[in-house]
Amino acid sequence: MSGNKTLFQAFKETPIKTNGHGNRDAGVLKEAFDRIDSDMESDIYGSGKVIEEFEEKMAKLLGKESAVFFPSGTMAQQIALRIWCDEKGLKRAAYHPLSHLEIHEEDGIKELHGIETVLLAEKDRVITLEDIQKMKEEAAVVLLELPQREIGGQLPDFETLQAISAYCQEQGIKLHLDGARLLEVLPFYRKTASEICSLFDSVYLSLYKGIGGIAGAILAGSEAFTKESKVWKRRHGGDLISLYPYIVSADYYYDLRADKMEKYYQEAKGLAEYYNTCEKVSTLPRVPVSNMFHVHYEVSKESLEPILVGIYEETGVGLSGYLRETGESSCYYEVSIGDLYETIPEGKLKEVFNTLNEKLKAI
Amino acid sequence: MSGNKTLFQAFKETPIKTNGHGNRDAGVLKEAFDRIDSDMESDIYGSGKVIEEFEEKMAKLLGKESAVFFPSGTMAQQIALRIWCDEKGLKRAAYHPLSHLEIHEEDGIKELHGIETVLLAEKDRVITLEDIQKMKEEAAVVLLELPQREIGGQLPDFETLQAISAYCQEQGIKLHLDGARLLEVLPFYRKTASEICSLFDSVYLSLYKGIGGIAGAILAGSEAFTKESKVWKRRHGGDLISLYPYIVSADYYYDLRADKMEKYYQEAKGLAEYYNTCEKVSTLPRVPVSNMFHVHYEVSKESLEPILVGIYEETGVGLSGYLRETGESSCYYEVSIGDLYETIPEGKLKEVFNTLNEKLKAI
Repeated sequence: MSGNKTLFQAFKETPIKTNGHGNRDAGVLKEAFDRIDSDMESDIYGSGKVIEEFEEKMAKLLGKESAVFFPSGTMAQQIALRIWCDEKGLKRAAYHPLSHLEIHEEDGIKELHGIETVLLAEKDRVITLEDIQKMKEEAAVVLLELPQREIGGQLPDFETLQAISAYCQEQGIKLHLDGARLLEVLPFYRKTASEICSLFDSVYLSLYKGIGGIAGAILAGSEAFTKESKVWKRRHGGDLISLYPYIVSADYYYDLRADKMEKYYQEAKGLAEYYNTCEKVSTLPRVPVSNMFHVHYEVSKESLEPILVGIYEETGVGLSGYLRETGESSCYYEVSIGDLYETIPEGKLKEVFNTLNEKLKAI
Repeated sequence: MSGNKTLFQAFKETPIKTNGHGNRDAGVLKEAFDRIDSDMESDIYGSGKVIEEFEEKMAKLLGKESAVFFPSGTMAQQIALRIWCDEKGLKRAAYHPLSHLEIHEEDGIKELHGIETVLLAEKDRVITLEDIQKMKEEAAVVLLELPQREIGGQLPDFETLQAISAYCQEQGIKLHLDGARLLEVLPFYRKTASEICSLFDSVYLSLYKGIGGIAGAILAGSEAFTKESKVWKRRHGGDLISLYPYIVSADYYYDLRADKMEKYYQEAKGLAEYYNTCEKVSTLPRVPVSNMFHVHYEVSKESLEPILVGIYEETGVGLSGYLRETGESSCYYEVSIGDLYETIPEGKLKEVFNTLNEKLKAI
């Protein structure tokens, strides 16, 4: 732990970083509110101009009848699955074994909603049509995560999405999109958000990943679906008297960054290339399909940490603030490209990765 | 509805208001953040200085081992009851028929947690020791709301609280405090928050009632209890990556207003006296026991609306933005005293209530 803390601190102190939009600090909120008049009225329990206008904007973006602002994706997605399970009278949902719901939510879907889950596909690959066709138990709803974050942000091709959508519709299985990073994958698919979402019955979008807001999520679908979701939002304790601190920020950073996803995507491909020139290093996916990827090292965490700290101190460039072990002599971290990437001086990355490669060779 | 809207608008346009701290607008957030440096780091999923320091401050205030910041009281209280039910292996909780959980949460406690409820006391009075002693079914936990908001903010006396606490402890029933307005009742009891809370196993405090923050709640209790509550917070989708917009505001307005509760209480008693001089008007309670009370009119909503609109326009003083019907010729509204009360010019209330009395007499 103490070694990890050192890496975290060394990373924190680097003036240049390859990942993200910058620090998660009060400046993020202050910047968004600079242009807001003090007399802008708060939303009140889901009503009011500030929340309704943003929900309409998001519904339009996603090509759905209606959208609801939620404090979190955890809440929004459990509710989406619950609605579809209730509709079918079958409390079973299917998703990837590394879905956010399965590994990051303390089993909320099971403990709060009593929904059983069917795990589709092996952990190290994305869900295929065949996985759904061969599902061992019937499910009311299938959740697809685009991109599949825990395996570096991998994607099925668009034809697979179409085939899955057609199959689910035919079989009376609802299809829900975990689109936490939906905007980030549009450049790869060369599709609009609306074109992707048309394949799904309901859609969740996060507002603090590529968009870089403070927190919050959008859940979109038909009028009947979103109306029902508001009842569950209240049950969950998510129908706050005021959500405007998140809404104003989400709206501001959406406008600032929605059109930058192509740029982040190209930059991610460029950065992955640098990583893949180094010995004992590979990115997953090899060629990124969004602004994110994972960096895998065939080096122990203990050996790699001092190497990275040394590079951060020598070059002033931070690559990651943590390492996650995958075995005795392997580890990885996640990279998400944001606004900071363009601040890296010309030639700097060449220096960083030459040094990294030399040091890894020397182990 | 359209008549109601007119009252709402007339109230909104009054330069002077007897209730509240002022508009719920972006200025509330901006004022709290004015003193915050842009480089103040965000909390991250429940960790970090900004959230931990505030939780410690609230734990100390409430005299509990530990406190957790929640986005909403709805979430915090369902979780408190769930923990106590799980501990006893009995999914039954007892509370007042007009508890927030029973009437404002779309039955979240039942639908999400599968907890049955036992309703204690009649709707129009507070819970007594006898109500608990004569409970028809065994319950794992009793929830007491201080003050009982939906009946004007009534309170049991302190001796009753002590007796209930002793009885519950003896019977192995957990006692939870819905202290949404806990600070507001301290002047009546002449007790500290800690003294009141020592009678309860767990405590919820709202941060946007008398305190006047943007949203958010505190749940406090033993270390083991709050640790478990964080697991449920994640399950509910309340463990947001960043809660600091609410925490910073809560902390700022707590410091600003915690010591003003005595003043609000005295002002509420003064305002209630004015109301009770009018014909066909009575306050509930007759003498307020906190900063809040209800104003009941033995006049139909339709007759009263134009009278109030007229008074708002004539005097510039707004009394309420809505009327709620209780019968064909009766209605009421709620009053909560806040910072605005002291801005009412000397003699103004006398003018307002003389006019009101004259107009009510004339019906």
